Amino acid sequence: MTERDAAPLAWDGARLRILDQTRLPFEERVIELRGAADTADAIRSLSVRGAPLIGVAAAYGLAMEATAAPSAGALEDGWQVLRDSRPTGANLGWAVDRVRDVALAAGPDAMAAAARGEAEAIHAEEDEASARMAEHGAELLAGVRRVLTHCNTGALAAGGRGTALGVILALADRGAVRVLVDETRPLLQGGRLTVWELRRAGVEHELLADGAAAGLISRGEADAVVVGCDRVAANGDVANKVGTYALALAARAAGIPFVVAGPTSSIDAELDSGAGIPIEERDPDEVRRAGGTLLTLEGTPCRNPAFDVTPAELITAFVCERGVAQPPSTSAIAALLNR
Amino acid sequence: MTERDAAPLAWDGARLRILDQTRLPFEERVIELRGAADTADAIRSLSVRGAPLIGVAAAYGLAMEATAAPSAGALEDGWQVLRDSRPTGANLGWAVDRVRDVALAAGPDAMAAAARGEAEAIHAEEDEASARMAEHGAELLAGVRRVLTHCNTGALAAGGRGTALGVILALADRGAVRVLVDETRPLLQGGRLTVWELRRAGVEHELLADGAAAGLISRGEADAVVVGCDRVAANGDVANKVGTYALALAARAAGIPFVVAGPTSSIDAELDSGAGIPIEERDPDEVRRAGGTLLTLEGTPCRNPAFDVTPAELITAFVCERGVAQPPSTSAIAALLNR
Repeated sequence: MTERDAAPLAWDGARLRILDQTRLPFEERVIELRGAADTADAIRSLSVRGAPLIGVAAAYGLAMEATAAPSAGALEDGWQVLRDSRPTGANLGWAVDRVRDVALAAGPDAMAAAARGEAEAIHAEEDEASARMAEHGAELLAGVRRVLTHCNTGALAAGGRGTALGVILALADRGAVRVLVDETRPLLQGGRLTVWELRRAGVEHELLADGAAAGLISRGEADAVVVGCDRVAANGDVANKVGTYALALAARAAGIPFVVAGPTSSIDAELDSGAGIPIEERDPDEVRRAGGTLLTLEGTPCRNPAFDVTPAELITAFVCERGVAQPPSTSAIAALLNR
Repeated sequence: MTERDAAPLAWDGARLRILDQTRLPFEERVIELRGAADTADAIRSLSVRGAPLIGVAAAYGLAMEATAAPSAGALEDGWQVLRDSRPTGANLGWAVDRVRDVALAAGPDAMAAAARGEAEAIHAEEDEASARMAEHGAELLAGVRRVLTHCNTGALAAGGRGTALGVILALADRGAVRVLVDETRPLLQGGRLTVWELRRAGVEHELLADGAAAGLISRGEADAVVVGCDRVAANGDVANKVGTYALALAARAAGIPFVVAGPTSSIDAELDSGAGIPIEERDPDEVRRAGGTLLTLEGTPCRNPAFDVTPAELITAFVCERGVAQPPSTSAIAALLNR
């Protein structure tokens, strides 16, 4: 494996290797993870990110922990450390709960193998989910040629070719597509990661400051907005990277589709609405700086919510591996889960 | 005059000195301007910026040109160079038209003095306009304590204490105010300039990534949004720094006031609606970089519109020195102009 071909996430049966996303697009550095604590660190620091990919990484993190120390106590400790590493995405808790439950059910002797097997199953399911949602999404958006997207939702964020970016790449397989990419401050996942993925995929794209998106949408420069999601409530409200909600408002005002793509592991059926989704507030230094450079006065107080909530009524469709909830009403979301 | 006390713009009767806003907040460097060409360069490079302050600087630039070469031909050339330096703001054309017309009417012998006198009158009027609009705005927003603003609209952008920031500072004179400041990518006028001004004024503030604004508004963290303007059409549509339109959508969705402040020199009565406002598209490198640091892959194609248009129906009130157009309908704007 050359650095050039480094996978976002690679499992060899014993160790997890991830491409350190904090270094992209300038350096392709691979990090090897060995247990729950270092996997949780990698999640917290955003070396691995994207709600679905965080779920996969955390599953492997707990499986490695169960292999190193196959006891119920160590498993619970690792589960807790991983679960606490980031609050907003639904997939993280979903994935580590699955691995823990299977491992505990297997008992001490079979725990390690059971945990590894469950993590591998989650990974395979998420790859498959991405491929399926991409097809559903590309069908839904047939004819769309100019897409605006936010943050990074490609192979660096989810299984397969990603969630929203997977949909966009599937659209591009069917005909020329042009992508408007929000840079996505403060951490520039659009400018650093989505641009890197689209360049490698050979898909035409233009980068913009986040504030430019609504004006370009109002001037008719996008046929649709397609984004990923970190948590979907039972009523279809969606938490996603900060900046998403304004795109939904602009898409509604312009009369273009606003589509959310994510695996069903993003759905938190326990949560009635988006009002209950915990919003992670991150280090103010992420706002004060970009690429290590100070952009404002040192010590400036900052707000740094990592996510916002888009109400279901602004969402044209939620696309997952099981199909499309259009619009994503409580009944449509429930129907997807029961499929 | 110590560097610490450097004024955004200072006229000594013969030369214009400006604080180089591209260096703020890290360095307070004063530039001396001597004619139309270097003033146009300073406007283009954003060393002096903010639509009303650009008008004042351009008026002095043309007056210095008329002093150096008091002929109709040189005056017309200087007028053209300045008028072409930036396309979107209304105040620039308004100011240089006034200086040119007065200078031409005065004839060659009196041209220089007439031009200087007219530039000084414009400067004094804009200072007075800022003071008056601040009072009108503070009255309109009485009781508002948490304001969200965008870009920079203080003394670095207009006469006196500014437009929107002048309103906010007048509010702060009457009681504690907390300001949420959009950093305003790509050129970070919020993070660099508004933070610098608010810190000097001792007004509590928090900086945020532009994408965070709509979510914070939806969560009830602002009582009002107050912004400046670069051009106001006869129907009340407003061109302002890119990112403004999404704030107007979010304010409307949250049911909080969205207030635009600017001198009447921002109004372009010849323009029926915002659809006719020319939108400046700037160097893509402004998006690729921040503070000189490359943020994406070199050569990434970018869109970099400097402004967007907010339709009048999203604007609660337009505040100028003559009063308040609430809402800014065609008739309300006309009434302000006829006052």
